[in-house]
Amino acid sequence: MRERLSGIGACVFDAYGTLLDVRSATGRLAAELGGKAELVGGLWRTKQLEYTWLLSLMGHRRDFWQVTRDALDHAFGVAGLDDDALKEKLMRRYLSLDAYPDVAPVLAELRSRGLTTAILSNGTPDMLASGVESAGIAGYLDAVLSVEEVGVYKPHRSVYQLACDRFGLDRGQICFVSSNGWDVAGAASFGFQTVWLNRFDAERERLPGTPALVLGGLADLSGSIDRG
Amino acid sequence: MRERLSGIGACVFDAYGTLLDVRSATGRLAAELGGKAELVGGLWRTKQLEYTWLLSLMGHRRDFWQVTRDALDHAFGVAGLDDDALKEKLMRRYLSLDAYPDVAPVLAELRSRGLTTAILSNGTPDMLASGVESAGIAGYLDAVLSVEEVGVYKPHRSVYQLACDRFGLDRGQICFVSSNGWDVAGAASFGFQTVWLNRFDAERERLPGTPALVLGGLADLSGSIDRG
Repeated sequence: MRERLSGIGACVFDAYGTLLDVRSATGRLAAELGGKAELVGGLWRTKQLEYTWLLSLMGHRRDFWQVTRDALDHAFGVAGLDDDALKEKLMRRYLSLDAYPDVAPVLAELRSRGLTTAILSNGTPDMLASGVESAGIAGYLDAVLSVEEVGVYKPHRSVYQLACDRFGLDRGQICFVSSNGWDVAGAASFGFQTVWLNRFDAERERLPGTPALVLGGLADLSGSIDRG
Repeated sequence: MRERLSGIGACVFDAYGTLLDVRSATGRLAAELGGKAELVGGLWRTKQLEYTWLLSLMGHRRDFWQVTRDALDHAFGVAGLDDDALKEKLMRRYLSLDAYPDVAPVLAELRSRGLTTAILSNGTPDMLASGVESAGIAGYLDAVLSVEEVGVYKPHRSVYQLACDRFGLDRGQICFVSSNGWDVAGAASFGFQTVWLNRFDAERERLPGTPALVLGGLADLSGSIDRG
């Protein structure tokens, strides 16, 4: 585990779970979900990710908005909920998730140092545009990259390659930050310098690709990066 | 949902979870796991599957024995367990999982009707040889096919293609049976006639590929299949 990343030209962030709090949708509608907010919130996220991996392996294209809806359908089924209006409310909430409070300050700091900042996400361009706008962080980002143009989800290598192509940087010049251990594994394995943002003290994944740095929050990120 | 499958030349079964009870390993060592048998058993299986999908998407090869060990390491970490001897016991147990009681009778029945029977599994050839031997079903199987020769895990299409190649059958002539909804989705999407063996009344997956038949156990399988 190194303590500093050096030679960095761009900081690229995962969106869902890293910058945006995916549990805030069910959290805000907890009253309407009764005692099932935790169950639905957890399953929604788990199935959403599973479906991205499975569809990619099966060679199917289905965009993240549809996958998010499919995962919610499954979660409602497991929870024994049958309420289309509530499902629609949750889907709309997914377009305006809360950003974690440490996000805007770190993006501002990185840009003030001349570093390029970007999102690289499974989300559709529409979902991401809505998400960064409502979270008030659109102005701090140089680019918002969606997997949609490559037609396969993370952690396929072609997704990470998007950032190299967009910024004209080598893999090792990109600092990639994600709270998802499997995403860090994929990015590190691809050749990015990676930061695992372990906000909730999760157990590490036993996958190839070790994070260069593990942080509990974003406050210490900028101080850990040297520009290239 | 059709009620019968017709024109079938071979019945191909998933192994883990379908023929072999993956929870029997932690179940048999429940006393040593204290109150953590359920947690470890669930996480072990969840992570084992996640890792197969993620490694495949990342383009990494790591065999199922190692993946099973990695997943158990993760589960022990989450459960706060630090007992290498117990871990080894669980791994050895994974080589002699219990078969569900409806397995041997249905395999015998299918073969008595002249149908080819086989396993198509993520497991390594060694794991599978040990599993079918200890479960007493080796004599009822014409073939045990492992993903190992294609180097990628289910639900990648090249895995299902193995069965077509081995038996010289078209996709539609193969009846594929799995208790894993995502595996059925991959197999149905590939073009097999599929049976979702929904042993525990699980919620259906929202993935492409619909099962031709859903059964609660294997007793009714042979009666639902017409030979091609």
